[in-house]
Amino acid sequence: MSLTRISATEASAAIAAGKLSSEALIAECLERIGQREQEVRAWAFIDPKLALEQARQRDREPARSRLHGIPIGVKDVIDTCDMPTEYGSPIYRGHRPVCDAACVAQARELGAVILGKTVSTEFATRHPNKTRNPCNIEHTPGGSSSGSAAAVADGMVPIAFGTQTSSSIIRPAAFCGVIGYKPTFGLINRAGLKFLAESLDTIGTLTRTIPDAALIVEELSGMPATSFDEVSLLEPRIGFCRTPYWDQADAGTQANLQSAVDRLAAAGAKVGEVTLPDEFAALAETQIIVSAYEFFRALTHERTRFPQLISASLTERIAAGGRVSRAGYEESRGLAQTARKQVADVFRDYDVLVAPSAPGEAPRGLESTGNPIFGLMWTLLRLPCLTLPHGVGPHGLPLGLQVVGRRGEDAHLFVHAEWIRRRLDE
Amino acid sequence: MSLTRISATEASAAIAAGKLSSEALIAECLERIGQREQEVRAWAFIDPKLALEQARQRDREPARSRLHGIPIGVKDVIDTCDMPTEYGSPIYRGHRPVCDAACVAQARELGAVILGKTVSTEFATRHPNKTRNPCNIEHTPGGSSSGSAAAVADGMVPIAFGTQTSSSIIRPAAFCGVIGYKPTFGLINRAGLKFLAESLDTIGTLTRTIPDAALIVEELSGMPATSFDEVSLLEPRIGFCRTPYWDQADAGTQANLQSAVDRLAAAGAKVGEVTLPDEFAALAETQIIVSAYEFFRALTHERTRFPQLISASLTERIAAGGRVSRAGYEESRGLAQTARKQVADVFRDYDVLVAPSAPGEAPRGLESTGNPIFGLMWTLLRLPCLTLPHGVGPHGLPLGLQVVGRRGEDAHLFVHAEWIRRRLDE
Repeated sequence: MSLTRISATEASAAIAAGKLSSEALIAECLERIGQREQEVRAWAFIDPKLALEQARQRDREPARSRLHGIPIGVKDVIDTCDMPTEYGSPIYRGHRPVCDAACVAQARELGAVILGKTVSTEFATRHPNKTRNPCNIEHTPGGSSSGSAAAVADGMVPIAFGTQTSSSIIRPAAFCGVIGYKPTFGLINRAGLKFLAESLDTIGTLTRTIPDAALIVEELSGMPATSFDEVSLLEPRIGFCRTPYWDQADAGTQANLQSAVDRLAAAGAKVGEVTLPDEFAALAETQIIVSAYEFFRALTHERTRFPQLISASLTERIAAGGRVSRAGYEESRGLAQTARKQVADVFRDYDVLVAPSAPGEAPRGLESTGNPIFGLMWTLLRLPCLTLPHGVGPHGLPLGLQVVGRRGEDAHLFVHAEWIRRRLDE
Repeated sequence: MSLTRISATEASAAIAAGKLSSEALIAECLERIGQREQEVRAWAFIDPKLALEQARQRDREPARSRLHGIPIGVKDVIDTCDMPTEYGSPIYRGHRPVCDAACVAQARELGAVILGKTVSTEFATRHPNKTRNPCNIEHTPGGSSSGSAAAVADGMVPIAFGTQTSSSIIRPAAFCGVIGYKPTFGLINRAGLKFLAESLDTIGTLTRTIPDAALIVEELSGMPATSFDEVSLLEPRIGFCRTPYWDQADAGTQANLQSAVDRLAAAGAKVGEVTLPDEFAALAETQIIVSAYEFFRALTHERTRFPQLISASLTERIAAGGRVSRAGYEESRGLAQTARKQVADVFRDYDVLVAPSAPGEAPRGLESTGNPIFGLMWTLLRLPCLTLPHGVGPHGLPLGLQVVGRRGEDAHLFVHAEWIRRRLDE
């Protein structure tokens, strides 16, 4: 297998067995980046010498963890002490934090090599940045974890950190055809993340395999390693959840999901159609109210000192946040709290839910990062979500299938998502 | 009234009426600091010229809010872009963030003047810093919001931000004889706070009056202004909660609380003795496990790169955090979650609970900031807490009385705490 398509899990085993060096792996990543970056524009910062130097250092040491020697991309809203961190905003041009974010420092402690910073949209909101979809550079990669999704999809790095407040991991992963994983809220420590909406912001990953998503969250959080050995023995109970926003999915996406679910049923899954409580139809709007109230506060320094350096679309969203009253915010938080309790019932008969990842394939053009609608509710509910590539859209671009797990049961999500992936790949 | 004892609410009214200038108020604060700082050591950084210049600027403008022209101290774990922010650690000597924390930027937007940075213990943990108790400089001011409590108590500033992860607002406020207020978790935005334990860290305030505590949280969060006009008409239902840790309170504190509760009953409150569910006895230990797991991760950069610059006591607590398994952490989070639900029943018959703020008066010596036991449970439960001075200990130092409210009902807490204060001051 080409080193630009190897998974972190495979690379880790090869490094542990002495069959691969971190240096060789990272040299391949850098070569791929050299070939493709001009088109894809996935990186906000990369320092090949620094990366290779750290790889050679790792190669001289005993393995510290399963992440030893593995290159990782870091979304540019997460602080790094040896690389600039610009939060996707001209306000922070050249900014260099003094301290690594917790997830970065932990990855380094565990032997990983931070390969570089991946492009974020403006403060991880919707306003696009320079990245293009590696599947077709005329199309958006999605956002806000644009660079992380594009870099992983294009074979530039096996793992990248992303963040999700609305749909910022799931959407770009689906658009670029990779695994996007948003953990249960709070599973990866957020110290050193530039906050946008603190009750929602979640650090997660972009990878090319489901075991890689498991690998990194396990190492950072101390979760036991998930065994994928008995995935084929599972008898999953899958809830097909069209969500209240089904009409916003295009016909191809609807048909793709329906046929996937039919195939999973034929492959032995017990599949049922999930009807969410009526109140869940309001959850997308609820997420928008909660996040806007928090944006307005979290970005006070920027909006008061540098209003001219904030995009028009973010300026409008911040202003909307300023108009949300505390009572309105608390009402929305209350709705979210109630829905978090109700959703336990939804899962009573199911191991996981299957839902759309995005309304369709990546839209053409770079002016928009696409519609986040299919992430909002799940982020607000704080459930673990994983998108896997399945099917293609009318322009031949990847479509995603979102698998949603019970809160705190990320390992259960991983094995069931892997069962689904294998059945759909057959 | 001396300007060094004036409340922010009174100052605000005087400024609005044209009877007081921000410059005059801040000049008085600076004079007091000049007289007393050598003894009290409340400030990590202060720039008199910058403060006066900003005060004069405010005086030239129309009032932006009730905080217009009011000086505020900021605990040195909260980022400021125009002053150093050292997080109470030699690792960050001279560090200057590029961005104000959300609460600082909001306070400035609302017209407040950031007077300076108040001393924090090391990363807001228990390891003491240089501050002394202004009531008796041989005694600790408590921690970790040591400088904020001491500065407010000593008349150097009417309001200061503090933070609480264990008991870091309530304890120093009680020890220094001021109002300490820890809001419902999440009420003040935390962007730009140096995280210690993100599921617990709460920004709050040290003030000399309860309306001042209300004033600032209302302005930042958009809560409606609390009216104190009808406080005397209240008929409070007060639960006397000795807590499972009552034995750790000294005899004088126990007697002080008991007599306070008797007086409140005599003054017309309906007082009952609260028995918490048995499981609550484990909540202090639960808080310790949750916070330690999070410390270990949040401080990864510091513990891996600067272990020699971390105090022995914090090093030990971080190491303990490294030994907490994810399963142990999740079990503790589960206990906390259950207790958060159960506590609603505790409040069924009561408006507020009254509990100890600390085991006794401020201990002699500066080697310890005192025992945080009476804050741990309430912080874990995410309830709003307010301590008010009542009684004195054997050395004549202040004792505190903690009033605990229902989650999200901070305004209800304010008026009931004010009723209690007035009855006890009669």
